[in-house]
Amino acid sequence: MLIGALDIGGTKTIVALIDKKNIISQQTITTNVGDYIAHFDRCAELLKKQCEDYDTIPSELYGIGINMPGMVEYRQGKLLYAPFAGWRNVMVKDYFIQKLNNEDVFVDNDVNSCALGEKYFGHGLDLQSYLWITVSTGIGAAIMNEGTLLRGSENLAGELGHVKVEFNAPKKCSCGEIGCLEAYASGSAITRITREQAQTNSYFREQLSLHSLPCTAEGCAWLATNGDPTALSIFEYVAEYLARGISCAVNLLNPSAIILGGGVMRSFGLLKGPINDKMKKYMVSQWSVPPIMQTKLGYEAAVIGLSALVLESKIKH
Amino acid sequence: MLIGALDIGGTKTIVALIDKKNIISQQTITTNVGDYIAHFDRCAELLKKQCEDYDTIPSELYGIGINMPGMVEYRQGKLLYAPFAGWRNVMVKDYFIQKLNNEDVFVDNDVNSCALGEKYFGHGLDLQSYLWITVSTGIGAAIMNEGTLLRGSENLAGELGHVKVEFNAPKKCSCGEIGCLEAYASGSAITRITREQAQTNSYFREQLSLHSLPCTAEGCAWLATNGDPTALSIFEYVAEYLARGISCAVNLLNPSAIILGGGVMRSFGLLKGPINDKMKKYMVSQWSVPPIMQTKLGYEAAVIGLSALVLESKIKH
Repeated sequence: MLIGALDIGGTKTIVALIDKKNIISQQTITTNVGDYIAHFDRCAELLKKQCEDYDTIPSELYGIGINMPGMVEYRQGKLLYAPFAGWRNVMVKDYFIQKLNNEDVFVDNDVNSCALGEKYFGHGLDLQSYLWITVSTGIGAAIMNEGTLLRGSENLAGELGHVKVEFNAPKKCSCGEIGCLEAYASGSAITRITREQAQTNSYFREQLSLHSLPCTAEGCAWLATNGDPTALSIFEYVAEYLARGISCAVNLLNPSAIILGGGVMRSFGLLKGPINDKMKKYMVSQWSVPPIMQTKLGYEAAVIGLSALVLESKIKH
Repeated sequence: MLIGALDIGGTKTIVALIDKKNIISQQTITTNVGDYIAHFDRCAELLKKQCEDYDTIPSELYGIGINMPGMVEYRQGKLLYAPFAGWRNVMVKDYFIQKLNNEDVFVDNDVNSCALGEKYFGHGLDLQSYLWITVSTGIGAAIMNEGTLLRGSENLAGELGHVKVEFNAPKKCSCGEIGCLEAYASGSAITRITREQAQTNSYFREQLSLHSLPCTAEGCAWLATNGDPTALSIFEYVAEYLARGISCAVNLLNPSAIILGGGVMRSFGLLKGPINDKMKKYMVSQWSVPPIMQTKLGYEAAVIGLSALVLESKIKH
């Protein structure tokens, strides 16, 4: 039962064929943000070629799942707005149904797909209600409630990255607002803080240089893992804000677990303990902090999730 | 189709008979916090007497809905903890099933009942997903998602009152934590702020006295409605914090409306505009503020809600 997957991100796109949770074929290309029709056509072409290697055609696939890098109206399969690419109001589902001659095209945002992937192939097999959080360039969440994704009235639920975690001299977020979690704890925020530190702290700057590390979140994570005190204090700071944002969601949703994924969670080991400890300050006083887990799907969660998106959507149709 | 209702609060209890959304008989008594068994027995006795007036008996009622003032495990009908009364781990459902000889006893917290009441008899007839918020002595919320209450993994979801809305010199909350919404915008908080103002602001103190108003949230609301600038500034302050807390929930849940009830919402007219304006600062920048509505069920929302709790529970069983 082969499923086609197009994980279209703001900078790169993965075109893949999946059998349940196994990616059997995949190709990564740069997203052509200037011309989405040309990009869609290229994705369709690459998917067709991958199908050929498995003696099939797109219309014979069990379904096709597509992630779009922004706000998606799931029911219509319409991209409302992709901030990085600047795309607006694109009927993605209809386009690919026609292009690939397959009725079973389903479109969502990548965080929802990750949460569905976890339901079918990861921790979700043991959990009914959990909060899935991607901490990557940005921060987004998906709310799984008794086995069903809470989509919200316009399928826009889960904007944890824009929950406010600072009201006193709040930092500016790329969304235009101030005090958003994303401005304190996303990959972009960690890179910004690392740069700020490198400018004022010569020892820290030298450590980055000594180990040939980039002045980014990744460089900072490497130093933190190796015990550098400045890098560790940056991760403590990030954990403080993640704890504020996650606690807010936990107080509202009472999930049985928090599942973390996304590039920043390569540093899960550094962050888990501090997040857990700091959440105690912000949660309802009688409650315990729910278990904080790393995704079981690794860094391909959003691609594997597309297989789950198709399975889930076909069951519910 | 008569339904029995026991709305047990931390200070008073309403025993009622309801026909759909019409309370046909009701009696208010003081909650006996010292002895819950004696209190339950008295409630049962009063309900029996009300039944007699309608030529029926409790076992013949369509069902019995009970609100408990605290954290309730809905499925078991167990009160986990009632902070005001100090009650812990009480098997409320089992007790009343036996006492009233009626299998259809359902127990929840009052905010969930309000949200269900709204679904069956209020704004919920036109809405699928909304956030119900009680602003009373404390603050609580219930999350209605596509017609179903989001209960959380332990039926504890909706603790909006303990979402943190201040991190800089945060105020102490009665829960023991700091910075909770409840410490800034509940009825108790407004009474506290009113007293603080009356101590330092002689004009404000004289205005309360001149109009024979109590130095409470109610007194402050009367003055604000009549244009007193200090009282109005207190309501602006309350609206600021409500906007912070509600926006957090909206960013996560993308509800189609916010429905407000509880004693503080007697001042809905004073609060609606400022909450709406201030939410723009805290919501995802591209989103519009969802409609902010006053409950259609008035100040008996929690009692009428018990009728809905029984209807909903019997449908789902």
